[in-house]
Amino acid sequence: MRKFNFSAGPAVLPLPVLEEVRDTLVDYRGNGLSLLECSHRSKMYEDVHNETISLFQELLGLPESHKVIFLGGGATLQFSMVPMNFLTPGKACDMVVSGAWAKKALSDAKKIGDVKVVFDGAETKYTTLPKSDTIYNPDAAYVHITSNETIGGLQWKTFPDTGDVPLIADMSSDIMSTPLPVEKFSMIYAGAQKNLGPSGVAVAVIHEKLLERCPKSLTAYLNYGIHSEKNSLYNTPPVFSIYIMMLVLRWVKAQGGVAKMSELSSQKAGAIYREIDSSGGFYSCPVEKESRSVMNVIFRLPSEELDKKFLKEAEALDMIGLKGYRDVGGCRASLYNAMPLEGALTLAGFMKDFAAANG
Amino acid sequence: MRKFNFSAGPAVLPLPVLEEVRDTLVDYRGNGLSLLECSHRSKMYEDVHNETISLFQELLGLPESHKVIFLGGGATLQFSMVPMNFLTPGKACDMVVSGAWAKKALSDAKKIGDVKVVFDGAETKYTTLPKSDTIYNPDAAYVHITSNETIGGLQWKTFPDTGDVPLIADMSSDIMSTPLPVEKFSMIYAGAQKNLGPSGVAVAVIHEKLLERCPKSLTAYLNYGIHSEKNSLYNTPPVFSIYIMMLVLRWVKAQGGVAKMSELSSQKAGAIYREIDSSGGFYSCPVEKESRSVMNVIFRLPSEELDKKFLKEAEALDMIGLKGYRDVGGCRASLYNAMPLEGALTLAGFMKDFAAANG
Repeated sequence: MRKFNFSAGPAVLPLPVLEEVRDTLVDYRGNGLSLLECSHRSKMYEDVHNETISLFQELLGLPESHKVIFLGGGATLQFSMVPMNFLTPGKACDMVVSGAWAKKALSDAKKIGDVKVVFDGAETKYTTLPKSDTIYNPDAAYVHITSNETIGGLQWKTFPDTGDVPLIADMSSDIMSTPLPVEKFSMIYAGAQKNLGPSGVAVAVIHEKLLERCPKSLTAYLNYGIHSEKNSLYNTPPVFSIYIMMLVLRWVKAQGGVAKMSELSSQKAGAIYREIDSSGGFYSCPVEKESRSVMNVIFRLPSEELDKKFLKEAEALDMIGLKGYRDVGGCRASLYNAMPLEGALTLAGFMKDFAAANG
Repeated sequence: MRKFNFSAGPAVLPLPVLEEVRDTLVDYRGNGLSLLECSHRSKMYEDVHNETISLFQELLGLPESHKVIFLGGGATLQFSMVPMNFLTPGKACDMVVSGAWAKKALSDAKKIGDVKVVFDGAETKYTTLPKSDTIYNPDAAYVHITSNETIGGLQWKTFPDTGDVPLIADMSSDIMSTPLPVEKFSMIYAGAQKNLGPSGVAVAVIHEKLLERCPKSLTAYLNYGIHSEKNSLYNTPPVFSIYIMMLVLRWVKAQGGVAKMSELSSQKAGAIYREIDSSGGFYSCPVEKESRSVMNVIFRLPSEELDKKFLKEAEALDMIGLKGYRDVGGCRASLYNAMPLEGALTLAGFMKDFAAANG
């Protein structure tokens, strides 16, 4: 019995992907060995590596200027690497502080160089995003945003035009879920474990012009330029995680690409938000309506006791991973690409029943 | 038909481990989801995480003072992190330059601080290791060595006594292959993809006293202190790679632990070196005898043409991954823990036949 896994990450993967991983696990396509044991310099792996990059480029519609790089250490390591590579001395970067993840990026950037906070959601307890009157500094080293706050449940719907200033986005929790105006971004990065694959690999998409900034004084692994020049084979990449990413991207393509993922996300999230909004206050979501995330829907019940009861009954009905982030409490339904529509509808149905029985 | 995979890394894994990974892939122990999809904050993963740490401690006989940390980015990221954390300003570190990997560690350390090279194998083209008369500086920040040079085929057999100066070793290619005098080391680190599991995770074992040095000015991911304090759960760890490491460590334990691994390594490497030494010069190994690695046996044939013929015929007999490192040429047989004795004996037999036919 397969459960509906609403975890925020590592998160649900498509069942056909898991089945293919299982079927190729011990002997990969008659090669007499597992891909888990396979040299990253072999033809067997090279094909996987390059197809993953190609699919990534194709599905996001990346121009040739945007290089795709695979790295370890998750998005968290990127919080170090972005300022180390791109926060040019003598300049400051603009940062949008939209929630818990943006704060982590901020904390690391401050240790590397000068930072200007151009928006801080603290006043609204991080339930709002910048409006169109937010002013970005025309001489900033770059502007950094977090496209989707996994913990706060906020998501950018349109992206700012930062002109000649490079726009850099942490898209860990909504990459590959919707068509993107990629030309607006000089860099996009994401840990894989939400929409792309298992944990253990992060992807960075970087404009070649931005790559020119990488300082030669950086140590090897921390220099994006080296990874780009070596096609992410400077050192041993996370071979197996990249293989699974390839299968996930093939699956996204077969489903109809990011446009179809976006359509499904709206349906899935719509069903949950509808229950929240029509519950007469039994369920509440603190996020301003226009910034509600379709990836992570957060909501609370009238009391912590009811939160707990809700989670317990959901789990008994094979819906797991609905507990809100440990520092936040409440509930959170993560609805990444691989969550079937049926999962979201089952949860919405349960929410209705639970409200009726406990409201 | 399973091939004998002599790759230097990612490398052969025990067949029973692969079979167990396959069998638990889609539904992990009746939990209704794959471990690939499993939250790193769940009980399901917590058990894996903690058992892996326990097995690591048990098999290496680590004292409580030595903390076990899991990281992404491979040993290559450690080349940055070690000097960033432990190369105290005002001090220099001592580095032993024994080959290609030590040189990479050196190159990064020099970018962070002052380095004294206490041994450089350049004169012998990196075929020798320091002798007992090598002098380490008593006021060094630490001494860094590479216990096994995967490319050069050298391996330390006894380790220096550096007194109060912390000894730090990159053991990527021979960790868990032999009993270690762990009390001599303040830090041991290793990429997993040779003796521990698949690529995508590195392990660092660090004495708690050394951890006190981690500067607060470091960004989060690059600070060992944060990972240690959070039991490697500060951010999402490479869940699945750690799971496979757990299975590999269970397998090592079931085989008889590191003492048994060491015994088998000697037998496997002995069989290959015997063929080299008894070939009347047909095969040659450049490494001084007392420093020959039992993990990576490197050898050449009388000509590049014969190297190629040898590799081609070996591959036709299902022995793969024997090509020497791209910058070095020749042949290399990597004989990590999971390489069965039968594999080494089959290779030795083929070497004898090939020498007879082509000598």
